Amino acid sequence: MATFRETLHEGFEQVMHLSGEPLVDERSEFQHIQIFDTVANGRVMALDGIVQITDKDESAYSEMLTHLPILEHDSMSRALIVGGGDGAVAEEILKHKGIEHIDLVDIDARVVEHCRVHFAHVNNGAFDDPRLDFHAEDAFEFLKRAEPGSYDLVIADRPDPVGPAQSLFAQDFYQLVQRALAERGVLVCQTGCPFLQAEELRDSYERIAAAFANAGAYLTVVPTYSGGFMALTWGSNGLELGSADTNAIAARFAKSGVRADYYNPRIHGAAFALPTWIGRLLAN
Amino acid sequence: MATFRETLHEGFEQVMHLSGEPLVDERSEFQHIQIFDTVANGRVMALDGIVQITDKDESAYSEMLTHLPILEHDSMSRALIVGGGDGAVAEEILKHKGIEHIDLVDIDARVVEHCRVHFAHVNNGAFDDPRLDFHAEDAFEFLKRAEPGSYDLVIADRPDPVGPAQSLFAQDFYQLVQRALAERGVLVCQTGCPFLQAEELRDSYERIAAAFANAGAYLTVVPTYSGGFMALTWGSNGLELGSADTNAIAARFAKSGVRADYYNPRIHGAAFALPTWIGRLLAN
Repeated sequence: MATFRETLHEGFEQVMHLSGEPLVDERSEFQHIQIFDTVANGRVMALDGIVQITDKDESAYSEMLTHLPILEHDSMSRALIVGGGDGAVAEEILKHKGIEHIDLVDIDARVVEHCRVHFAHVNNGAFDDPRLDFHAEDAFEFLKRAEPGSYDLVIADRPDPVGPAQSLFAQDFYQLVQRALAERGVLVCQTGCPFLQAEELRDSYERIAAAFANAGAYLTVVPTYSGGFMALTWGSNGLELGSADTNAIAARFAKSGVRADYYNPRIHGAAFALPTWIGRLLAN
Repeated sequence: MATFRETLHEGFEQVMHLSGEPLVDERSEFQHIQIFDTVANGRVMALDGIVQITDKDESAYSEMLTHLPILEHDSMSRALIVGGGDGAVAEEILKHKGIEHIDLVDIDARVVEHCRVHFAHVNNGAFDDPRLDFHAEDAFEFLKRAEPGSYDLVIADRPDPVGPAQSLFAQDFYQLVQRALAERGVLVCQTGCPFLQAEELRDSYERIAAAFANAGAYLTVVPTYSGGFMALTWGSNGLELGSADTNAIAARFAKSGVRADYYNPRIHGAAFALPTWIGRLLAN
């Protein structure tokens, strides 16, 4: 494997040149796990041939999934991460002093074991933090047992809707999350790149809007996910993401002491501005 | 050619699957011109193996290069397009009723000839508009003869800084543009994707800032230019892009009657919000 070829999208491939021998190339009980260093994209983990994380641009993903809802809510203490076995999202959440507990539910313990070693510079000890509990199980089953109203934040750091992850895109999933969230709690979901995966955005938004009083989408740009903008969809019964004043967000961000590579208060507000063609996907 | 493989960036390739026979595959006096239809990216033109335009996402590029400065200035009448032989940028400028004249200077008349045919649905008759003059020559030489203060808008719709286009990235080029612009006139330049071409942004910004009283950068996202965000840098002696009030921009946009697929007044303001890592590139 001197190159890695991703063929997630019909008719389009991205090819990354490796800069050394693969670090991990293993078929776990659940999926094909590959970790390798590349010339242009940094260290990469792919699952079943699809890029999940690169250390060169994960900040655009993990910071926008976390700091944005946490700072809008302003008093979160309990979070659930669905997937996220690389630990990048957990690490960002743990930067906030008010966070008391995180449940991280990833079906594949082997992903966590490999990422503790090979993405230690990204997850930065998150799996050793006493505030984090890792559960190696199906998040759908975990949610069925979750105490109602017990989370302020649920992040669906899920892969694309293929294979075993499909249940995490069904209407039932959003209902279970809605039940598990506190009244001002928020669900935020990665929802693919609408340029190449318009249906994923349309379907997810529709289902979230059916489950929650408030719903919407905001954007980030993760270069190694082909297709430009990535859509993040959200739902909440008691909070309206994107409504907070920029000055209030700036004050909260300064107070948090969080250091970020992508997120800042101006990007926070700008992320809710949708190009006209993306806005149309949500309006239909 | 059942696939097109772009190898612009070291260590990274994108591969597009063709959906039919190539429409153009010609070596002109200046470059290799290829036009073809693809499965995922629409109709594509590549010059010397580098994607220049696709009809599926050109709006993100041509609308953000044009409507944004035109609406901030609010009384532009004369424009110069450096490059832009596909006619997409010209078509957007011509949507504004106040525009009286455009000089489009592209070194390669064959590009224009092919794009009149194969991108007619994009340039939409721009080359037949009596307000547009096409000049098949080196834009650098054209600028040497330009009357001082004669343009309100100069758009550098230039390729990447390789081969014959290199002169369009030199300090001299920016000085010539500065001389050709009216006092409130603006230069806007495509400046590559900073994730993979950080030097192009840093160098262009530094040179523009040396030539103009005001300079800066804003962002768009063109999915088929690999690397997420594309940076657009600007310089002006009498205007500060990004300073206009959103409500004023919205009123001007409504009055213009322009219909757009990407641009809207909220995206206009949001485009100036830079992710922290891009802001750092400009600060150093």
